[in-house]
Amino acid sequence: METVEYGKRAKAAMAQLIRMDTEEKNRVLLSCADALEADCREILSANEKDYRNAVGNNMTAGMLDRLLLNEKRIAEMADAVRKIASLPDPVGEILSEDKRPNGLLIRKVRVPLGVIGIIYEARPNVTSDAFALCFKAGNAVILRGGSDALLSNQAITDSLRSALSANGFPADAVLLLNSSSRESAQELMHLNGYLDCLIPRGSAGLIRTVVKESTVPVIETGSGNCHIYVDETADTDMAVSIIVNAKTQRTGVCNSCESLVVNRKIEKELLPKLEKAMKEHQVEVRADEEAREIIPVFKKAAEEDWGTEYLDLILSLKTVDSLEEAIEHINRYNTGHSETIVTKDRSHAEKFLHEIDAACVYVNASTRFTDGGEFGLGAEIGISTQKLHARGPMGLKELTSYKYEITGNGQVRP
Amino acid sequence: METVEYGKRAKAAMAQLIRMDTEEKNRVLLSCADALEADCREILSANEKDYRNAVGNNMTAGMLDRLLLNEKRIAEMADAVRKIASLPDPVGEILSEDKRPNGLLIRKVRVPLGVIGIIYEARPNVTSDAFALCFKAGNAVILRGGSDALLSNQAITDSLRSALSANGFPADAVLLLNSSSRESAQELMHLNGYLDCLIPRGSAGLIRTVVKESTVPVIETGSGNCHIYVDETADTDMAVSIIVNAKTQRTGVCNSCESLVVNRKIEKELLPKLEKAMKEHQVEVRADEEAREIIPVFKKAAEEDWGTEYLDLILSLKTVDSLEEAIEHINRYNTGHSETIVTKDRSHAEKFLHEIDAACVYVNASTRFTDGGEFGLGAEIGISTQKLHARGPMGLKELTSYKYEITGNGQVRP
Repeated sequence: METVEYGKRAKAAMAQLIRMDTEEKNRVLLSCADALEADCREILSANEKDYRNAVGNNMTAGMLDRLLLNEKRIAEMADAVRKIASLPDPVGEILSEDKRPNGLLIRKVRVPLGVIGIIYEARPNVTSDAFALCFKAGNAVILRGGSDALLSNQAITDSLRSALSANGFPADAVLLLNSSSRESAQELMHLNGYLDCLIPRGSAGLIRTVVKESTVPVIETGSGNCHIYVDETADTDMAVSIIVNAKTQRTGVCNSCESLVVNRKIEKELLPKLEKAMKEHQVEVRADEEAREIIPVFKKAAEEDWGTEYLDLILSLKTVDSLEEAIEHINRYNTGHSETIVTKDRSHAEKFLHEIDAACVYVNASTRFTDGGEFGLGAEIGISTQKLHARGPMGLKELTSYKYEITGNGQVRP
Repeated sequence: METVEYGKRAKAAMAQLIRMDTEEKNRVLLSCADALEADCREILSANEKDYRNAVGNNMTAGMLDRLLLNEKRIAEMADAVRKIASLPDPVGEILSEDKRPNGLLIRKVRVPLGVIGIIYEARPNVTSDAFALCFKAGNAVILRGGSDALLSNQAITDSLRSALSANGFPADAVLLLNSSSRESAQELMHLNGYLDCLIPRGSAGLIRTVVKESTVPVIETGSGNCHIYVDETADTDMAVSIIVNAKTQRTGVCNSCESLVVNRKIEKELLPKLEKAMKEHQVEVRADEEAREIIPVFKKAAEEDWGTEYLDLILSLKTVDSLEEAIEHINRYNTGHSETIVTKDRSHAEKFLHEIDAACVYVNASTRFTDGGEFGLGAEIGISTQKLHARGPMGLKELTSYKYEITGNGQVRP
């Protein structure tokens, strides 16, 4: 099937989906969750084939683990769908209402985005997660997963589509491109007139390509060169505890910390404690000259370290003379994701919160909290690092748009 | 100056602009308005040169009128800036606040978008309008106007920049590309890392190019293939009055009506009245066979008429058997701008409001009301026809984003 056909079918499905009420959507989602468990054997058998191919293709252990499904993981996927069914429905909310002097009643109403495209990599659970989030917000979704998980994704999508049909809803509410070729992704990025929004989920390289190539509206997600600034007034024990958590609680994720910015006035107190903690957690510190004068065993940082998202047990360290210099440095090198100040000074905290240009700006807390679940959104489709439409963790509301509904009694414009 | 330099300078200006409060912004805007009037002679002299060149280049009368400035028009530009100063400041609004179980206080705060690019054509008043709207919402703006108005735009920008500097604010809050070459526009469309958003204002061709070529986030504006559906229960006098207004009150604008969709059951009553009114207003009607059986003097419509935005005294007419067919037809051919139903049936009105996929959906009113001023936004930067970020008329709020400000006391993620 040509990619434009997917667009046509998804758009046709939207004409029906727009009529669904909350109760119907929830009923279908619960039924989809049951279907995933009932079809467990088929899904696992498809996943086994994907896994064998991936082993043959020398996939890394980390990637293999992301690809692997088992009964427990399928039950978790089904539970995630059930949880999404239990979340409040954002659609239909009246965002504002205004009676104009000419008698026109103007209502701004929250509506689905429409047809959403998701391009992702090797994790098959994204298939059911992304469908459930999009569907709950009233959208149709066209999925394009990685080639390594193609059979698993097909089995999961087949299960969801059967459940939709069995409930009298259009199966085309979820469509999976049957090819993982570069061409199919390219075609999806150019499906203007059918796709209302495209969200890439995966590596920095994938996201860069989608942002660069797409002619449909894109939400840029994920890449996080997150900083922690240790102010001159910081509690250094708190600072070390936050740094250890933000760097090591889970490396390889976008909200982990990649770079420290330290006020020169606190380096003598902070750096020895930091060195001990980083050694304990096997973190390599790449520091500037000022810091290496105090802790000579720190490696030497190069200019490119300030802009590098390591996703590894490496941390860069920049010395600054003031809060202003810290803000300037962070606004220059960050990716608009998550930034923390550790301070006891309220006015410094306020200035940092106000002037740092990022989706999530923290005072005295780990950057690792940037997450839809931690923010109380119930679930998330990704973390936006752009400023248009949505910023930070995106939940159901961020998968909606709005329209103006205007009621008159014959008004014409004078 | 290279285009990337504009990006760097605008981003540097943002670092200062982010500290402005409402009072400061308003003071600067009033001062900019005064400057435009004080610099009237310089602006008119530049405009005279542009105008002479345009006459030499055989510009059409309509375009020449858009390009022309005089004392009255400059006073209107200044008044528009004063009006924007008087509008409420959207920045700083707390959109939500949540204390999480772990003690983190999460605030969602409205912030400026950042650096906004505007690509526009021959109207020099857009220069001061766009600056004032962007500035009031806390943004820096990079303008790229049409070559025909280059000298006028430069004179206006010089005036604004002097007023900014005189008030101790960065002149780079407004920057005008000093070239109207294709290359300079292309470079602006690829200014990732500097430009947070790009808004094209002008012809369908310009907008198409920007949507297709840009790698920075774009808000698509403007193109409007707007429909009026006359339901079987319509008051036909009201229908004709709305059609006349939506088609003829001002042709050549995006919210004018281009296509009628008429329920077969009301054609015998409606079409004779329509024919009389359209003849009176010199509107050419291109109708399908069913309508031409009743009014044979209507021209014959071709398939491409359904998708054409005439921006002229031409109207297409499609006959349908039901509300459902009307909705399907409109959702297939519209551009997501403005659509009207004329009906006395409340359930038909509700269904139309709910199922039509467009920024503005009307019951018993002219499509011409889709306008920031008419919606009470005070002013507008354009009308979005996409669903991401903003839809319909965009005022000051639509020129903002948000950020999360999170305050803790040492929280780390377990």
